[in-house]
Amino acid sequence: MLVQDKVQMLLPIAIGDYTDFFSSMYHARNCGIMFRGPENAINPNWFHLPIAYHGRASSIVISGTDIIRPRGQGHPSGNSPPYFGPSRKLDFELEMAAVVGPGNELGKPIDVNEAADHIFGVVLMNDWSARDIQAWEYVPLGPFLGKSFGTTISPWIVTLDALEPFSCEAPKQEPPSLPYLAEKTSRNYDINLEVSIRPAGQGDSHVVTKSNFKHLYWTITQQLAHHTINGCNLRPGDLLGTGTISGPEPDSLGCLLELSWNGTKSVTLGGTSRKFLEDGDEVIFSGFCKGNGYIVGFGSCSGKILPSLP
Amino acid sequence: MLVQDKVQMLLPIAIGDYTDFFSSMYHARNCGIMFRGPENAINPNWFHLPIAYHGRASSIVISGTDIIRPRGQGHPSGNSPPYFGPSRKLDFELEMAAVVGPGNELGKPIDVNEAADHIFGVVLMNDWSARDIQAWEYVPLGPFLGKSFGTTISPWIVTLDALEPFSCEAPKQEPPSLPYLAEKTSRNYDINLEVSIRPAGQGDSHVVTKSNFKHLYWTITQQLAHHTINGCNLRPGDLLGTGTISGPEPDSLGCLLELSWNGTKSVTLGGTSRKFLEDGDEVIFSGFCKGNGYIVGFGSCSGKILPSLP
Repeated sequence: MLVQDKVQMLLPIAIGDYTDFFSSMYHARNCGIMFRGPENAINPNWFHLPIAYHGRASSIVISGTDIIRPRGQGHPSGNSPPYFGPSRKLDFELEMAAVVGPGNELGKPIDVNEAADHIFGVVLMNDWSARDIQAWEYVPLGPFLGKSFGTTISPWIVTLDALEPFSCEAPKQEPPSLPYLAEKTSRNYDINLEVSIRPAGQGDSHVVTKSNFKHLYWTITQQLAHHTINGCNLRPGDLLGTGTISGPEPDSLGCLLELSWNGTKSVTLGGTSRKFLEDGDEVIFSGFCKGNGYIVGFGSCSGKILPSLP
Repeated sequence: MLVQDKVQMLLPIAIGDYTDFFSSMYHARNCGIMFRGPENAINPNWFHLPIAYHGRASSIVISGTDIIRPRGQGHPSGNSPPYFGPSRKLDFELEMAAVVGPGNELGKPIDVNEAADHIFGVVLMNDWSARDIQAWEYVPLGPFLGKSFGTTISPWIVTLDALEPFSCEAPKQEPPSLPYLAEKTSRNYDINLEVSIRPAGQGDSHVVTKSNFKHLYWTITQQLAHHTINGCNLRPGDLLGTGTISGPEPDSLGCLLELSWNGTKSVTLGGTSRKFLEDGDEVIFSGFCKGNGYIVGFGSCSGKILPSLP
């Protein structure tokens, strides 16, 4: 046994491919209201399939790794030309991720009712996001450089077996899923999630959101089965992010984009406030399940923002 | 020395991450006209940055590997619910891909004028696409299962040194690129590309398109520099696809989506015809540069469509 703060944590897996889903209805709805208005907040496909994109595996780092503020193109408004420089809307995204094992052969989908046997366990994940870069680049092929500068995960994997006592019913899906996504038992897990920010130059961190894994609309087993239904092969160590886990309450939103409503209001942090992250800010995720007389903890998933390159 | 058809070709690299760009203006314009009409065929961001998405590395296969027709969700029209089944709009995409070497550290972008030193060479690539699955899933996070069932590459890498005699001026960019994308010398390569289809049950293949690598609007060095400008790290063996390389002529279009104008007209193949690919069809890409008394060949990039799972 070693004392945790005397050892250097490393990535617990070699990640072949990383996929990021978009499975909290609250998050999808808030983003939709912000960018398209309340009438068409959620695109019709969202209720029929777990929407996802391929992320960048090379830039996944372990908790405690500093994150350099990315540079890139943004587009201020209307017909003005794009600017280039450090991201002005740097954000965290509160996520968890499933670690795949054992996976499947190319061409051989995994049945949704056997999908749990292909998930080794879960980790906390911060899918750092540059909202200005993302907004300008993402039509029509999706997020790219707004995400690929860094993704942080917690240092150990909590197995699904360890989470079994904390399983709970998943939300009812309406309309019902197509048969290949219909589960005999549709499970979420009651995992308390919390995000704190330690503002630049300050000693104390301040909780900015409290959410829970159980708010996911699409379960991780549906995510995995959908991912393979076209024959795509998953390999041991592949990472499947849940997407930002926002809850229904104003203090359970999983990113600053939602908490500050795209920079239109401030989030209080002790004596200071933020709309998006500033250089020197440290973001710390934690997660735990509370059992009868014991706790299953996920450790920390943290990172500090370093200034952009000159 | 071994006779080529007596050996089994394998993937020439271990691919960490695979990125696919969208760098032919003709392809972007044709897709835009089909889906959004001629007024707004190309989204304004396209002329300011090389648009791309992260692809799936696990399902990249070597030339000669059969491709199983993917199953998935499609959305026929209007408000009708999505269907599930074998893709009805299976397509090829004529691409090439740059192989990265040596790459860069996380947080340290590569200058556009040094980008060529980070490209080991290029291969032919068929980015197989299920157009019906893609159309239903891609808003707002981009292509996912419509692409991740298989991507075929040719079996050896032609180095940039070998292509040097075939370099040519890249198209003039208007508006001019932002400084981080402005190259002292902006180069394309004169590489002849050809796609043939051998229809199911027939012995002969028929050429359906002839294009050329020189039609790319964004150069592979701009693609690579843009990819790293946010600090994203590229690793040796990473693959950067060009996107479908369509030319300006009706017989230089790089996919059936364009050749059949989304299934509204037929493409003749000897005594038969196609709108999209049928089971048993084999698609064969070839590419070559013609020097003075010699040829640099890229070999073949081929694959046959097998029927979907029951």
